[in-house]
This record gives sequence, C-alpha cells and structure tokens, in this order.
Amino acid sequence: MINRRKTKKVFYGNVAVGGDSVISVQSMTTTRTDDIDETVAQISRLETAGCDIVRLAVPDKKAAEALPEILRQTTIPIVADIHFDHTLALLSVQAGVHALRLNPGNIKKEEHVKKAVQAAKERKIPIRVGVNQGGLQESWMKGVDLTLPIEEQFAHAMVNGAFTHIRILEELDFTDIVISLKSSDVLTMINAHRIMASRCEYPFHLGVTEAGPAFQGSIKSAIGIGTLLQEGIGDTIRISLSDDPVLEVKAGRTILQALGIRRDFPEIISCPTCGRVKIDVISLAKKVEKAFEGVKGDLKVAVMGCEVNGPGEAGDADIGVMGTYGKGLLFKNGEIIDRIPEDQVIDRLVEEGKKIIAEKEQAMKSNKETSTVGAKN
Amino acid sequence: MINRRKTKKVFYGNVAVGGDSVISVQSMTTTRTDDIDETVAQISRLETAGCDIVRLAVPDKKAAEALPEILRQTTIPIVADIHFDHTLALLSVQAGVHALRLNPGNIKKEEHVKKAVQAAKERKIPIRVGVNQGGLQESWMKGVDLTLPIEEQFAHAMVNGAFTHIRILEELDFTDIVISLKSSDVLTMINAHRIMASRCEYPFHLGVTEAGPAFQGSIKSAIGIGTLLQEGIGDTIRISLSDDPVLEVKAGRTILQALGIRRDFPEIISCPTCGRVKIDVISLAKKVEKAFEGVKGDLKVAVMGCEVNGPGEAGDADIGVMGTYGKGLLFKNGEIIDRIPEDQVIDRLVEEGKKIIAEKEQAMKSNKETSTVGAKN
Repeated sequence: MINRRKTKKVFYGNVAVGGDSVISVQSMTTTRTDDIDETVAQISRLETAGCDIVRLAVPDKKAAEALPEILRQTTIPIVADIHFDHTLALLSVQAGVHALRLNPGNIKKEEHVKKAVQAAKERKIPIRVGVNQGGLQESWMKGVDLTLPIEEQFAHAMVNGAFTHIRILEELDFTDIVISLKSSDVLTMINAHRIMASRCEYPFHLGVTEAGPAFQGSIKSAIGIGTLLQEGIGDTIRISLSDDPVLEVKAGRTILQALGIRRDFPEIISCPTCGRVKIDVISLAKKVEKAFEGVKGDLKVAVMGCEVNGPGEAGDADIGVMGTYGKGLLFKNGEIIDRIPEDQVIDRLVEEGKKIIAEKEQAMKSNKETSTVGAKN
Repeated sequence: MINRRKTKKVFYGNVAVGGDSVISVQSMTTTRTDDIDETVAQISRLETAGCDIVRLAVPDKKAAEALPEILRQTTIPIVADIHFDHTLALLSVQAGVHALRLNPGNIKKEEHVKKAVQAAKERKIPIRVGVNQGGLQESWMKGVDLTLPIEEQFAHAMVNGAFTHIRILEELDFTDIVISLKSSDVLTMINAHRIMASRCEYPFHLGVTEAGPAFQGSIKSAIGIGTLLQEGIGDTIRISLSDDPVLEVKAGRTILQALGIRRDFPEIISCPTCGRVKIDVISLAKKVEKAFEGVKGDLKVAVMGCEVNGPGEAGDADIGVMGTYGKGLLFKNGEIIDRIPEDQVIDRLVEEGKKIIAEKEQAMKSNKETSTVGAKN
C-alpha cells in the first residue's frame, strides 16, 4: 500500500539506505567513544535489539583514535558524528567508518572541506548532512513566504539550510548524500520532509530531535516518522530519546512493525485491562513482553483478559492466551490448543512461539527455493 | 493547519464531543467497578493527569448499583460500558451516567433495545457504538471488494458492522451517536475511519485496540490516532494500554500536544544523550519530567546536554537548562538568566516555569477581556 519515494541508494557498509532497500533503524551510543570497552558493549546491546546502523560521537582526537579498535571488535556499520573539525573526519575515514555525519558548511576552510569529502569519496562512504530547527540561521529564511504558518516557514528554512550543505558536496561531485531535517516540533519536521521530497532524490534519515524522555519521545517520534513513512517518505530512521539507546531501537522497530513495513521481532497484542478481566493482564503482558525479549522473528502474540475481546483478537494472532478464572486458555491460529495453569502460561507461549517462527522461516525458505527453481526453468 | 471534519456535537455531561469542541482524552478504569473506593480513587488520579471522560465497565448488577455513589463522589463525565444486557443500561442511565458504550445490535430482544435507547434519549446522553476488528462477522463482508488489500477489506467490513448498530439507533430516532472503529492493526484502523468519515457526520472516538504494553502500545496509538488527527478526523481519543490507565491519559495528552492541538501540560524537550554531553541528560530529563508532574499549563521546557544542539533548542523553549562542566545554564526565552549548581537546577526550573505559566494565563485573560470589550463596542 505504501508507495515509496524514489531515491538514490547509498551504502553504509553492507547496509543499503534508500532506493528499494529495507528501512533501517539507527541509534547513537551514549558512552564516551574513547571508552572502547563500554562503547563496544553498548554497540553489541544495540545490535541485539535490532539496530542496523550505529552512530558514534567523535568530538575529539581521543575519540577518533579509538575508532580502529572499536571497528575491529564490531561488525555493524558505524557512522562517525563530526562537527567543525575536518581532521576528525579524516581520522574517522582512515579508521574505516562506514559513513560520516558531517555538515561541510560548518568546516571553515574550503581546502579542509575538500580533503574530508575526497577521503569519503575514495572510501565510497556516504555523508549525512542535516539541519536542526534549533540551529536555524537567518540566511535560511531568504525567499521564504512569510504569510505561511510558522511551522511551514521553518520547514522551508530548514530545507534551504540543508541545501547549503548539499550544494557544497555536489560542487565537489560528491552525491552519496543522506539528508536529515530534524525538529523537536513534529509538524515542522513533517513539513520539512514533504518539501524536500519534491526537491531532490537523496535518501532521508528521519528523526524528531530532542523528543524527550522515553515515553513522550517515542510518541512524538511515532507521529512524525509514522506519518512520513505512510507517505513513502523516509529510508532510515532514528528515534531520539533521553534514555537507554536500546529503547530507541525498540521504538524504531515498533514503528516499522505497526506500519507493516518490517516484522522481524514478535509483536505483543494485549488488551487494556478493565473491570471485566479475569486475570492480571498488565503483569501477564509485561511478563510475556519480557519473555519474548531476544526472540527474533515474525510472530503476533496476544494476551487477553476476558471473553468480550478475547477470542477474536487472540484468534487473529499466531498465538495467544486468554484468561479465565485463574487458568490460561492457549490459542494457536484461532484454535484452543490447551488450558493450563497461569504460572505455566509464559513458558508454553514462548515455546510454541519459537516453533511457529521456525515453521514460518522454513516455509519462506521452501517458497524461495521453489521460486528460484521456477525462475531457472 | 488541521482542517477538522464536520460532525454533529454531542455532550458527555459538560464535555462536548464533536463539532468545534476541543478533542477530549478518555480512559477506562481498571478497578472492579463495585469497589467504590478504589474506583473513585482511580478516577481522581485520571482526572489529575488530564483525563476528560472516564469509562467504567458495568459487567453486572453489582457494578451498576455502585454507580450512584461513584457519581456522587466524582465530577468528571462517566461512561458506562455495557455488553448484551439492557437492564444494566437502564440501571446506569438511572444512576446518572453521562454516556453509554453499547452496541444495540448485541441486545437480543427489540423491546429491550427500545427501552435502553429510550432511557438514553430522555436523559439526553449519547451512545457510543463501535466495532473491533477482533469481532469481525462474516455478514459484514457482504459487498466488500475482495480485490482490495486485506487491511482495506477489513476496514470496509468494520464500517459495515458499525452501520448495523447505527441503523438500529437511527430507526429509533436516536442520533446522539459517537462511533469507534478499533483494530489492533494500525493501518486497518486508519482506513476504517477514513471510509466512515465520508459516510456519516457522527463524531469519532479514536483508538487502536489491544495496543499492548505501555511502550509499544503508545507508539502504535500515536501513529494511528496521530495520522487521523492530522487529517482532521477524530473528536475524542482513548489510548488502550495494558498498564496503569494514567499512562493512557498521558499518552493521549502527548499526542494532542505533539500536533499542537492542545497544550495544557508542560512539554519536556530533551536531547538524546551522546558522547558529547557534559551532564547526565537522561537522569536530569527524568527528574525534570517528574518535577513537572501535576503542574498544569502551557510550557516548553528544554533539557540539553551540550553546546551543539543546546542553545538553539533551549532558546526555542520557554525555559531550559543546558549542561556544561557540572553547572546548569538556565535559559528563559532564549536568554541565559543564571548559572547554577546542577543540584539546584530543578527547583529553579519548576519555580521559573510556574511563573511563566502564570504570566501566559494572565496575558490570555487580558487579551480575552480586551477582545470582549472590543466586541461590545
């Protein structure tokens, strides 16, 4: 149903961004980059949670010098986040990072910009340029229609700002560009991307910036990113939260899952508890969520409290449990398969869930083999 | 910017739903309704969090009999949630509830339907009818174009299902109707409302059902509800979470705030922490969020970690703090107003924040008085 915007395809190492590639989920480490052990450990946690690309701040030489060892110990594509200093970009590229986050317009000397861009070009790594509404400059307002609503004025200004960086790269014949247009205001962020979508074919890195603590931040991000993805806009996403970056990855994954774009991790469907429920849905749902952490694969798990919504929704899921008088009714593809004590429900759910995932993967594999054979004939 | 869909206006007590009325936030109690003390206590917590309308399950006579006392102890509009049994509807209406959630098609005898609807009509209380995708019936698929994508087929079927209930009410000349079309699938939910929007003028109660635990559930709800609200669709909203219903209200409020629809509570803008930050942004942001709990009013508070995004965003907020070497730089309307030790930052922020809210309210009041005077002349 989603008609994806046509964009150029670039590569963050082995992860493609843009074109027909799957929409990737990014995050950023919160460790000091020069603390190699902590950084590698966090990257590993992010990868387990389903992160596709990790960004690291490279604020100084010590951080840049830690990159070779970090890259040696990791396999996920790494983006070096650099501000102002082209020598940090050069060191990062030499270390082997898979992309740069860099605004060339913020590097003062033209020859320094050239050197950094040339280095990226030689290694065939993309550069993400981006503007934040917070960094809005007066010059970006040039030509903006001041009769528009303020969010739209800012959106146009952000697009102008991004073009100041894009043009510098294009003049150096560098076009492996990814664009971000971040704002803490959801409507401004949406508008900016809609405008930019009609003005270039570079892929977009979507994000609502300074979105806040996890709960508020994931809601704001879901609206901004979710709205654009439905319009086919967006190629890689990052949820900014003032929290453990693993939550950023989970939020990103959940957005893609809710829109049916990627289904790589189990989805828990659980009813809101109410005066009707026969079991403690809240704690059961939380336990189920926890039990399925670390399980990878396409699965829809239902946790229902009573007979009003129970069977219908649980039947819609691959597997589900419905509470009734201290017992758990286990459903699989709409059929009751067992009635077991509540304290055994979770282990059985996970066990059955894993089986279903394995079956689905087997079925997909067989389909693929069949169609490959078919294609050969 | 949002062009609101034209609908009939109905009243849940003193809270208007539909027409030009503000979009209200609903929740549902998780207590046993017949436990009056617990229920009243939860209603009070929901009200403090900014809930506009509360729904209570009325699954049996004991619950219905608790309603008069609950209503005596509360002021917020109360909706009685009733399934199948018209006598519970009659008892609820007699008790003085402000609305019914009831599907007349689920009451078996025609005379019972008539009695319940007549009672609602006499008391001038609206009835919400609604279907869940989980309760999809084969008969609803009649006339649905089976070449459509499955989400759209289900959406059409849900609209057909809702009309079976709407028609019963209309035949009884009852039109104070609110419609809900819930699905645990975000795209189906969005599609169903878009279809229904063109087919009637009744207000909508938006919700993604069985959305899951708080984190996942609020993300799914934000996409579904946020998408529709941007299209001007939706008059009252409920976020379904398998968690404390206070979180449902907070999620609902955050959605409305993110879209600039209602700004009744402080918004925290905080940067994601990264390798650049000079203070512990995560814990500071969480503390700030907590400190502003219970504060009501339009306020944008920024918590920033460093100079890259810091001043810009913090300047955009009404008030903000930016970390730098163990100190907190306090901003107000873009100007540094103080540099204070980190452990004193929160108290000052709340103090200054409350002042700003009071100033804004005073200014609004003066404006209103001026314009009223103007109108009289």
